[in-house]
Amino acid sequence: MRFDEAYSGNVFIGMNSDFNESKVVLYGMPMDWTVSYRPGSRFGPARIREVSIGLEEYSPYLDRELADVKYFDAGDIPLPFGNPQKSLDIIEDFVGKLMAEDKFPLGMGGEHLVSWPVMKAVAAKYKDLAIIHMDAHTDLREHYEGEPLSHSTPIRKIAEKIGPENVYSFGIRSGMKEEFEWAKNAGMHISKFEVLEPLKEILPKLAGRPVYVTIDIDVLDPAHAPGTGTVDAGGITSKELLASIHEIARSQVNVVGADLVEVAPIYDHSEQTANTASKLIREMMLGFVK
Amino acid sequence: MRFDEAYSGNVFIGMNSDFNESKVVLYGMPMDWTVSYRPGSRFGPARIREVSIGLEEYSPYLDRELADVKYFDAGDIPLPFGNPQKSLDIIEDFVGKLMAEDKFPLGMGGEHLVSWPVMKAVAAKYKDLAIIHMDAHTDLREHYEGEPLSHSTPIRKIAEKIGPENVYSFGIRSGMKEEFEWAKNAGMHISKFEVLEPLKEILPKLAGRPVYVTIDIDVLDPAHAPGTGTVDAGGITSKELLASIHEIARSQVNVVGADLVEVAPIYDHSEQTANTASKLIREMMLGFVK
Amino acid sequence: MRFDEAYSGNVFIGMNSDFNESKVVLYGMPMDWTVSYRPGSRFGPARIREVSIGLEEYSPYLDRELADVKYFDAGDIPLPFGNPQKSLDIIEDFVGKLMAEDKFPLGMGGEHLVSWPVMKAVAAKYKDLAIIHMDAHTDLREHYEGEPLSHSTPIRKIAEKIGPENVYSFGIRSGMKEEFEWAKNAGMHISKFEVLEPLKEILPKLAGRPVYVTIDIDVLDPAHAPGTGTVDAGGITSKELLASIHEIARSQVNVVGADLVEVAPIYDHSEQTANTASKLIREMMLGFVK
Amino acid sequence: MRFDEAYSGNVFIGMNSDFNESKVVLYGMPMDWTVSYRPGSRFGPARIREVSIGLEEYSPYLDRELADVKYFDAGDIPLPFGNPQKSLDIIEDFVGKLMAEDKFPLGMGGEHLVSWPVMKAVAAKYKDLAIIHMDAHTDLREHYEGEPLSHSTPIRKIAEKIGPENVYSFGIRSGMKEEFEWAKNAGMHISKFEVLEPLKEILPKLAGRPVYVTIDIDVLDPAHAPGTGTVDAGGITSKELLASIHEIARSQVNVVGADLVEVAPIYDHSEQTANTASKLIREMMLGFVK
Amino acid sequence: MRFDEAYSGNVFIGMNSDFNESKVVLYGMPMDWTVSYRPGSRFGPARIREVSIGLEEYSPYLDRELADVKYFDAGDIPLPFGNPQKSLDIIEDFVGKLMAEDKFPLGMGGEHLVSWPVMKAVAAKYKDLAIIHMDAHTDLREHYEGEPLSHSTPIRKIAEKIGPENVYSFGIRSGMKEEFEWAKNAGMHISKFEVLEPLKEILPKLAGRPVYVTIDIDVLDPAHAPGTGTVDAGGITSKELLASIHEIARSQVNVVGADLVEVAPIYDHSEQTANTASKLIREMMLGFVK
Amino acid sequence: MRFDEAYSGNVFIGMNSDFNESKVVLYGMPMDWTVSYRPGSRFGPARIREVSIGLEEYSPYLDRELADVKYFDAGDIPLPFGNPQKSLDIIEDFVGKLMAEDKFPLGMGGEHLVSWPVMKAVAAKYKDLAIIHMDAHTDLREHYEGEPLSHSTPIRKIAEKIGPENVYSFGIRSGMKEEFEWAKNAGMHISKFEVLEPLKEILPKLAGRPVYVTIDIDVLDPAHAPGTGTVDAGGITSKELLASIHEIARSQVNVVGADLVEVAPIYDHSEQTANTASKLIREMMLGFVK
Repeated sequence: MRFDEAYSGNVFIGMNSDFNESKVVLYGMPMDWTVSYRPGSRFGPARIREVSIGLEEYSPYLDRELADVKYFDAGDIPLPFGNPQKSLDIIEDFVGKLMAEDKFPLGMGGEHLVSWPVMKAVAAKYKDLAIIHMDAHTDLREHYEGEPLSHSTPIRKIAEKIGPENVYSFGIRSGMKEEFEWAKNAGMHISKFEVLEPLKEILPKLAGRPVYVTIDIDVLDPAHAPGTGTVDAGGITSKELLASIHEIARSQVNVVGADLVEVAPIYDHSEQTANTASKLIREMMLGFVK
Repeated sequence: MRFDEAYSGNVFIGMNSDFNESKVVLYGMPMDWTVSYRPGSRFGPARIREVSIGLEEYSPYLDRELADVKYFDAGDIPLPFGNPQKSLDIIEDFVGKLMAEDKFPLGMGGEHLVSWPVMKAVAAKYKDLAIIHMDAHTDLREHYEGEPLSHSTPIRKIAEKIGPENVYSFGIRSGMKEEFEWAKNAGMHISKFEVLEPLKEILPKLAGRPVYVTIDIDVLDPAHAPGTGTVDAGGITSKELLASIHEIARSQVNVVGADLVEVAPIYDHSEQTANTASKLIREMMLGFVK
Repeated sequence: MRFDEAYSGNVFIGMNSDFNESKVVLYGMPMDWTVSYRPGSRFGPARIREVSIGLEEYSPYLDRELADVKYFDAGDIPLPFGNPQKSLDIIEDFVGKLMAEDKFPLGMGGEHLVSWPVMKAVAAKYKDLAIIHMDAHTDLREHYEGEPLSHSTPIRKIAEKIGPENVYSFGIRSGMKEEFEWAKNAGMHISKFEVLEPLKEILPKLAGRPVYVTIDIDVLDPAHAPGTGTVDAGGITSKELLASIHEIARSQVNVVGADLVEVAPIYDHSEQTANTASKLIREMMLGFVK
Repeated sequence: MRFDEAYSGNVFIGMNSDFNESKVVLYGMPMDWTVSYRPGSRFGPARIREVSIGLEEYSPYLDRELADVKYFDAGDIPLPFGNPQKSLDIIEDFVGKLMAEDKFPLGMGGEHLVSWPVMKAVAAKYKDLAIIHMDAHTDLREHYEGEPLSHSTPIRKIAEKIGPENVYSFGIRSGMKEEFEWAKNAGMHISKFEVLEPLKEILPKLAGRPVYVTIDIDVLDPAHAPGTGTVDAGGITSKELLASIHEIARSQVNVVGADLVEVAPIYDHSEQTANTASKLIREMMLGFVK
Repeated sequence: MRFDEAYSGNVFIGMNSDFNESKVVLYGMPMDWTVSYRPGSRFGPARIREVSIGLEEYSPYLDRELADVKYFDAGDIPLPFGNPQKSLDIIEDFVGKLMAEDKFPLGMGGEHLVSWPVMKAVAAKYKDLAIIHMDAHTDLREHYEGEPLSHSTPIRKIAEKIGPENVYSFGIRSGMKEEFEWAKNAGMHISKFEVLEPLKEILPKLAGRPVYVTIDIDVLDPAHAPGTGTVDAGGITSKELLASIHEIARSQVNVVGADLVEVAPIYDHSEQTANTASKLIREMMLGFVK
Repeated sequence: MRFDEAYSGNVFIGMNSDFNESKVVLYGMPMDWTVSYRPGSRFGPARIREVSIGLEEYSPYLDRELADVKYFDAGDIPLPFGNPQKSLDIIEDFVGKLMAEDKFPLGMGGEHLVSWPVMKAVAAKYKDLAIIHMDAHTDLREHYEGEPLSHSTPIRKIAEKIGPENVYSFGIRSGMKEEFEWAKNAGMHISKFEVLEPLKEILPKLAGRPVYVTIDIDVLDPAHAPGTGTVDAGGITSKELLASIHEIARSQVNVVGADLVEVAPIYDHSEQTANTASKLIREMMLGFVK
């Protein structure tokens, strides 16, 4: 260590490349102000970075090291507390610039609503974009108790933007009856309860297409991700989620961006969820970015 | 909200029908005074209700909504601290009245001993009653260190009441050698370690019979239910327990009452177990009550 | 218990009078969406009620029992997640109605911003209103990073509404330099660090006036209130805060409403803060309402 | 270490003298089955022993070392779960034997009801016994919701046994109106809120008399003892409680036995309360036993 | 209880045979000073013993009771804080003596480095020794940031001692690329990700050989063992680990010693991991010792 | 934000000046490998920085803002796990360089042993150095169970280096009898139990002298600092510690360096201790550096 060098320790796994040389830009979206149940995911990105020091740089699943992928950790995007619309605008602008610079956006939430402006910005660049969405919840509400900007709405919004037939949800085990019916009528694809098996069926159909992958950590069973706002029993294991990421990595789809959202350290008493999220981020980076 | 209306917020999922119109009566049995290891399940029912606000009213497993089942949440039965016999008498009297009114009793514990007076009251009405018991522990002791009223005894008591051959235990992975031997000699049915597969075999044999379902949350692996008094490794997942409930729901048995016991919020740091219990209660209600 | 009577257990200390006969209306304001640091106070009112069952109904400080004060627990006001303006409008409307009915409003937060519409509604009725404000923080910002609706602004807003000279803050130990300067220039009264001693000096000057008392639980030292969003070392003890409430109770001021805000159960691992808040609510009720 | 020697590590501060040579016998009373609010104190004694390894053997307050006092740690008395009467009988018998052997009984609870049989056994030996009782609660109920054996009753029982005029309570800040009135009418001494100052006044009056000291850890403020069943704001500090013990140590009373009850590790997330209890036990031993 | 008998309650499941009559010696190695991430496993053995009181003495998996295996719990070996080399020397000496007395050493960690001196001492007696190693991590580093004594090195050390071809690792899902390459080149056996299936293949090849089994609790998924220093997603379940132990128990290998390491109570908020470890110790004892 | 700028968010209160322009250098010493009781302080500095975002930049105590003091946050010094000697050498070298550059070293521990090399390096520059030491423990052992490098020894070491008569300890309430006797015989100054009052007496005697201030967070009562390795009841409040820092700030001593050690986030469930430490660091910076 040069002892007069500015500290930049709290970046993912303590590494950071130069922005210009980096393919991947990692960033946090510390927003949780529209959640209906338990808030706290605003601290998710910082905690994921903090615990990432316990992680190896090598993936024995993919036989690839972080040294093989240049990434830049841009830190957390400053967002105005309690103002959803302005927050979303700032995120959309940020990701729009990344798109212009041809970066791979890798986002960390924050509540799931943050994925909406990201997907919008990515869809603006990739006209044939498909969405792979892993989640316990449909997130297909038009509004939540009257509020159109809610953590229950992002998938509905992107579905209406790019066409419901381009959206593929996996692992869904919770939602209103109306949401499931809307999806069915609109031609959106919902794979209930399971992720890996339906993914194996669907990935070949998406071969060659640009795909954005958005993962709500609560697709995991509460046993595997207690540190999130809305836990829901009957989910998949972290082993299955890792296998699903690897399945995408080995497929013919062209992943052009991804995020992992809803890690809430407050409920994560042994930092189990943050550690798992940290590993998922590493695998997404090593698997999705060629 | 009519602002001058009495608050009744802390009922299951914030809904409550009129007693007379309701088929199901939901009630708590906040007793934990005979447990031999870690107490605290007295607060289980209240916490299950509290977290239930995070739950959807629709089950994508059963394609049924809570609006389809009228239920009345009677709150917690007041029980005298430290007096097991009087507590059990009060519970038996309460459930006896529900039986007289032809209600479906859906109880929340509390320690497992509370199921004993409930099952006794239900057995008084249904002469051909069978018990489906899911648990990590046999609960077949005659007494625990001399005490005949102990959380280790309820299944023994009901087995002696209705005949051991009418009792079916599933998922059992802990007990004294003597308990397993008693069960074997008495003709009681114990499926060790697993729930779903043996249930599929046994349910057809019970077709048409009145069945009471008693679930100790510790049938789940500690990963899925840390918030209970006596965790025991090697259990089933919440996905398997949900599937088991759905298997019963789709079978030909006539479920006439049910309970879920041993949720202890004190050990449930992210409210994971209470949230899971809340979902299980919803699925039992939607699946067991036609 | 009449076993067919609707459950209304989760009201303060398990008691509830009829709305019309009650002098006091107790209500929760479950909002935390503008906080800049740690959210979670939305669950404060529910937890305060839940733990209140451990509390006696008699105050040996005031030699008075809850039976002497009729109160109605109206539950939590439903507020739209993530929409501060609409939330504040709903609160103002609610309290306005209480004012019209001549009730004593006793509110539980939620973040401190909820006190702003309450104080506005109370000030609309009592023209000579003074505010007694106990807090670690000035809460005198005009806006927070551009947002005029922030948990850092409520005292500024009410000061501008009723005149800064009518606002008395106590226990303040944190704020921006600009906030302290604004207060000084505007003629607002700030007692730094201490509560009880300055209160003894100021109360005689307010004799006979209508006073609204707003208490941010973080006026307590973190040792006494870990369960809040923004803990700040160097605060007062719960003994001192109780004595301060009793000092007001024995003074000649006419308390016309009060609140206790910022209890956040998420950070309150032994429910210490919620239990303390519950006792404070009891003492405020018994001490402020004649 | 002789590697073939039986492990007896979990005794207080890792030391243990021979029973016959010891003046003090330390023992746990792991009972919590009559508590009305939060159970868990059954694990108190074991946890106090476990954390005692972090404690020095020397008291800079009393300038005395544990080596100066021979004590025998008898472990926890086995008690039958859920059977209060039998538990109390066992404790009374145990302490009766200690009395016969002329030992100084130093007990660790467990709920406060365990002090009742201890005090009864001590009173049987010392006819002129006085009780010094430090607690947040009066514990003067005749029964609790009909149950005469309740953690709310032990001081009433001993007061009726040895005469209310011989019982001195300190630090009391919670109770029913009826309890305070009973004490007043019966001639019992209650010092409300404070401990040290009233103790200084009363100790001279007790000079030369045999005294039993019973301390409920909740006499401490919740900030100083979060790990207990019924926390109650407005209590004293651990510094004041230490000073009170030292005041007794330096007085002319003849302490003939003592206990510290109601430590509940479940609520004691950083083991703060258990560590404090461990230090209190050391000071009681070094201060009370000449 | 003889009330004047020295307390020796904190031994495994409260039982203890005489050293000379015992086949198994159970001991703790409370060392965690070389860990690179989260320390705290020094308290593992004590907590495993403490929670073992909640465990039955009978295994329904193996149909065998603890009464069938005589064991002596030697407590924790006193180790000098912060001095790795001296600590390892003490452990090696301790186990060497057990070997001389023909005991079965059953150790509890502590960090994984403690297994190195144990395995060395066992290898000194059994010339044809093979190692079965279950872990999330390779532990094959030569040194960690320059330190040759590190929790990342024990398997490398024993592999170099007894020959890499005699070491079989299972469940490995984390390590540096160099470690995996070293293993491959050296002829060491690594089964990635899974334990039970590869074990079934390998056990027949080890028939008749002396085998030492070393289990790092983090081979379990974080859902099943949150209470450890370095959690790593994608692990096996406690059910699979139990089945693996039973597979070894039923095989033809001659288990001559075993350990379970890295339980860290600090991160184990509901004592889930300690309870699981306690059951694993019971099954290892009943399954490995004939 | 320039979106392509490297993230350096995790510095104290999010600010960082250039090294050369800074008077103060803030640095972490993440070492905890010699502690005898509960480890975990290695994560202290990182957590103090993390929570510092909740802190204002202005001190109403000192009427001074962080903008008035230029500081550089150098991050955590990388230290070799489990190697105390090498760790101390690295720290001494680091601080030696700061001395050469005429910086004010402001350190964050880590265990208290880290203060030893810092004080040694500072003493090498300031020949007339005095030490102000606030702590619950004497830290005057020559060695701990044979180990000369232990968290129980740093004050003994510096006392022997600069002369015991130049060392002033405050708030001490724990230690071995031998330690107190050594101090007395050696002419070292120990103020037992209290900090502020004895400080007021001693500070005038130190007027004009260079002083290093070392604060062990456990000088605070456990109520005020649960998040530390060795909590000890009977300590001072955070209010008193703040006043003590301010007393030094207003005195005539020349503070030339300072540290705050032993914050252990693992035991700090609501981040209370880290938040308090963060405020103490701010006040030390604003008060000690002119």
